[in-house]
Amino acid sequence: MDQKFNELLETLSGLDYSGMYESDFLLTWEKSEEELRALYATADALRNLRERGISTRIFDSGLAVSLFRDNSTRTRFSFASGSNMLGLQLQDLDEGKSQIAHGETVRETATMISFMADVIGIRDDMYIGKGDAYMREVANSVAESYADGVLDHRPTLVSLQSDMDHPTQSTADILYLINEFGGIENLRGKKVAVTWAYSPSYGKPLSCPQSLITLLPRFGMDVTLAHPEGYDLMPELVDIAGKFAAESGATFKKTHSMEEAFEGADIVIPKSWAPYAAMEKRTNLYAEGDDEGIKALEKELLAQNATHQDWCTTRELMEKTAHGQETIYMHPLPADISGLSCEHGEVDADVFEDHRVGMYKEASYKPYAIAAMIFLQKCKNPVETLKALEAAGKDRWYQA
Amino acid sequence: MDQKFNELLETLSGLDYSGMYESDFLLTWEKSEEELRALYATADALRNLRERGISTRIFDSGLAVSLFRDNSTRTRFSFASGSNMLGLQLQDLDEGKSQIAHGETVRETATMISFMADVIGIRDDMYIGKGDAYMREVANSVAESYADGVLDHRPTLVSLQSDMDHPTQSTADILYLINEFGGIENLRGKKVAVTWAYSPSYGKPLSCPQSLITLLPRFGMDVTLAHPEGYDLMPELVDIAGKFAAESGATFKKTHSMEEAFEGADIVIPKSWAPYAAMEKRTNLYAEGDDEGIKALEKELLAQNATHQDWCTTRELMEKTAHGQETIYMHPLPADISGLSCEHGEVDADVFEDHRVGMYKEASYKPYAIAAMIFLQKCKNPVETLKALEAAGKDRWYQA
Amino acid sequence: MDQKFNELLETLSGLDYSGMYESDFLLTWEKSEEELRALYATADALRNLRERGISTRIFDSGLAVSLFRDNSTRTRFSFASGSNMLGLQLQDLDEGKSQIAHGETVRETATMISFMADVIGIRDDMYIGKGDAYMREVANSVAESYADGVLDHRPTLVSLQSDMDHPTQSTADILYLINEFGGIENLRGKKVAVTWAYSPSYGKPLSCPQSLITLLPRFGMDVTLAHPEGYDLMPELVDIAGKFAAESGATFKKTHSMEEAFEGADIVIPKSWAPYAAMEKRTNLYAEGDDEGIKALEKELLAQNATHQDWCTTRELMEKTAHGQETIYMHPLPADISGLSCEHGEVDADVFEDHRVGMYKEASYKPYAIAAMIFLQKCKNPVETLKALEAAGKDRWYQA
Repeated sequence: MDQKFNELLETLSGLDYSGMYESDFLLTWEKSEEELRALYATADALRNLRERGISTRIFDSGLAVSLFRDNSTRTRFSFASGSNMLGLQLQDLDEGKSQIAHGETVRETATMISFMADVIGIRDDMYIGKGDAYMREVANSVAESYADGVLDHRPTLVSLQSDMDHPTQSTADILYLINEFGGIENLRGKKVAVTWAYSPSYGKPLSCPQSLITLLPRFGMDVTLAHPEGYDLMPELVDIAGKFAAESGATFKKTHSMEEAFEGADIVIPKSWAPYAAMEKRTNLYAEGDDEGIKALEKELLAQNATHQDWCTTRELMEKTAHGQETIYMHPLPADISGLSCEHGEVDADVFEDHRVGMYKEASYKPYAIAAMIFLQKCKNPVETLKALEAAGKDRWYQA
Repeated sequence: MDQKFNELLETLSGLDYSGMYESDFLLTWEKSEEELRALYATADALRNLRERGISTRIFDSGLAVSLFRDNSTRTRFSFASGSNMLGLQLQDLDEGKSQIAHGETVRETATMISFMADVIGIRDDMYIGKGDAYMREVANSVAESYADGVLDHRPTLVSLQSDMDHPTQSTADILYLINEFGGIENLRGKKVAVTWAYSPSYGKPLSCPQSLITLLPRFGMDVTLAHPEGYDLMPELVDIAGKFAAESGATFKKTHSMEEAFEGADIVIPKSWAPYAAMEKRTNLYAEGDDEGIKALEKELLAQNATHQDWCTTRELMEKTAHGQETIYMHPLPADISGLSCEHGEVDADVFEDHRVGMYKEASYKPYAIAAMIFLQKCKNPVETLKALEAAGKDRWYQA
Repeated sequence: MDQKFNELLETLSGLDYSGMYESDFLLTWEKSEEELRALYATADALRNLRERGISTRIFDSGLAVSLFRDNSTRTRFSFASGSNMLGLQLQDLDEGKSQIAHGETVRETATMISFMADVIGIRDDMYIGKGDAYMREVANSVAESYADGVLDHRPTLVSLQSDMDHPTQSTADILYLINEFGGIENLRGKKVAVTWAYSPSYGKPLSCPQSLITLLPRFGMDVTLAHPEGYDLMPELVDIAGKFAAESGATFKKTHSMEEAFEGADIVIPKSWAPYAAMEKRTNLYAEGDDEGIKALEKELLAQNATHQDWCTTRELMEKTAHGQETIYMHPLPADISGLSCEHGEVDADVFEDHRVGMYKEASYKPYAIAAMIFLQKCKNPVETLKALEAAGKDRWYQA
């Protein structure tokens, strides 16, 4: 048995994550710290098997259903990859983006796609107050159809980004950090700047920064959230961040200065997002079908953004951090890169290039994050199953 | 060996369905009664294996090609599911909806997609006189290419709904009834109302009611077909329904009163459809590219529909049936539900809710119906193969 | 062991094709003659196993990513089929057709789709000077991400048609000829007419004829390239054709007369293409977003085409060939057939029908061509692996 793999299984064995079996993965703050630790160990264990060429298939057949209500390349491929390595075939439900379905339609569609679905992955991040609610409606629908004897098993859900959280992204982010710093314990006391950044585009989701501030403090990281006035996140999630920080003995600070957040940071994660209040307004305009109102709001928000072009990560700004250019700069990608993908953006091209390989590695954890979520939700005995997969040693890629 | 499974194999062993091997499944009335019984037993046997967690894969690799010339979520997922449980990967041929291909184009395309296709599923229900004809053209094309030595095997076809029949739906319907009534023999003498219902939309396919009236009488069910004057089905299929009823000693009646059809019924299946003559006209207008004519016809048909808003299933109407609110109400879904999905529709919301779980169960048989069609068309010895699958007992979903 | 299979393995054993492992397949003229011979033997060996019902899966899971920047049915299905027979699941990256991505975007996207991709297939044939360059950018990107430790393996690339070459088509073409003539040695001295043909449509790719003139002379075939004045191919590829002919002792001639090319030919391959200079101009107009210019160019080219309607294969013209109507007529399909798919086209309907079965057989080799490219790029020991697959004798399609 591989030593790293062995250590991961030992870690897993010491944790209580029994609540994850046959559950869903929608919001990290609904998961216990042990469940999250189990998730990270499982993701690393699956990666370990895969990189040693050992098959991680637990499904001989079965479907992984995806429903993307927003464009996606990265997450789509990550879901396809994570499902495929477990043996599931991707089947996309293309409902169109504009539709906010509810009630009978959701219940019926959720059931109709689930007769042989083992997992359902949903991305619904565009409408504040709607994305997570929609996922819960789907989750309740399939639970009900299972209870009614319509479904012979209940497919589990994985959020591929809602209006509130982006758990597969934040799991990839922390897996990257765990592996960079040589263990989750080493994250304690690290200072992280989660900051807004200028973008020439409009309406980027809040779920990325929200997923970070609600997760990192739980493992003892000192988080500073920075954004211009008016660019608030959902207030209840900022509260959760503070509460988690208090519980773990970490700090959670807010500021309206990017520079202040960068000061002494070990890790900086600057990214654009839209103001919460504006997104709430937009959701209502969409619900009313008010196209004129949407256009007016867009114009207003772009003008508001434009007054904050100085929120850009430069090498000069990086000098303020704990390790200068060596400090970890993260981004879920794609980034708006000044002088490359746009005139003024979230980050200067030289800083982006300095940290490009790191960001690619960060992204590389997402398929494993998704696979681990599915694995823990579908396996009653994850440790035994991982052991059995290693013992079987079936080639993923056969070579005589 | 599981007792239910054992019984199903015994049933299968007593039937002659040898004609299904390497054949297609386009119209149920082209199949013998024994072939249909074999289909139902096979579907239940595959479901039995699946629900016991036993792999039903007979294909190590291979493609199931789908061609949808009309929107579909339910049937698309059912085809994906049914194919996947046998080990086939879905590959969709997206030709666009408006095109009525024929001749060289059909032969060429059919061959080009078939080099590694084991099965081809087609939905082409919009144009009267065209859908089934198109499927036969595809079937003949691949047969010819096989005979010519171009294909090393002949992919078999499954109709996923034509202008004439909707065999995967009617198979799901009767499987539901067989399982509800505890055996196909118990369907004999049951009174079924296949009736038109009002819908605010236009041009729903005739193949749903046609698939029911041509199938249910074969198993001794007494069918009453009801619709307003002018909403005729294809006359040759109504003739077939009568002929089958006569052969099995059942009754087949026609009426222009929904109430009369409901009178004493054990099962009611009300659903909207378009008048045959209008659909024929529409097909010609499409062929001529007469957009104005299509719009005018649509307007005319909606107006004609609107005079029949009383064709709606209410609790009051359900009282006329044999078992009142307990009588089975079926619908292939999605239904137009009054006060829920539209102002006036096919069914009242309370009746729909009373029977929702039943309709979901009805739908749950469709993936198995499709899998069984493919199974019988691709397996020379279905009984032996099913036995071998059970004996192998490979986990569909591995758990250590 | 099957005799034919045995012979193919013996052929393979005598060849040096070690350079193909972990390499890409973009241009046939970058491959050695031995590598090409190995490709043909491998394609035939995989076909032999498949036709004997023996599984050719070497992947237990894994993704084959496709990126089509031009419409495609045939090549799309061939890639799906070839991938599927090796055990890979197709995952399409739908980037939209109009976009010519470059730089950071290509590197990032290439990496993001590759975390679990074993192979990437790209079709990018519309823009002269761009297609092959784009593929190289993707190839370099994934190589870099592998070197950087971002990817744990490097996915290999297969060109599904570029602006320069169409290697999966030309491989299918030569496999058809090898099998028709009973061996690659029998191609030597055969006279092939690669000629332009009239089409009422505009801008057909140059890569088809270019792939033929650069490949066939390498195996001793005497190629005559014919087209009207002004319909030049890329000059450097015409030079390569001449060089290969000189090396193998074959002849390579150019003419502006279709009749002259047909004179005494054993094989004729007439197909429309666009003039090189015009395609270069079009690429620039697209880059400039000059819609008016594109429309004007299209009009001009259609008018230019129209002066060459006599470049059509007729039975009369076939009489000029070595074997009259028995001479092999090839086309990658779909063809513009006079009186069938258009008024005046590339070929008369009777000639097309005479040779239809042959063209279908020609096409049937494409999935195997693709599978063989992937196989040789992913297998360190192809001979041993093929032997092991045969010895394992796992059913592709299980029958009890």
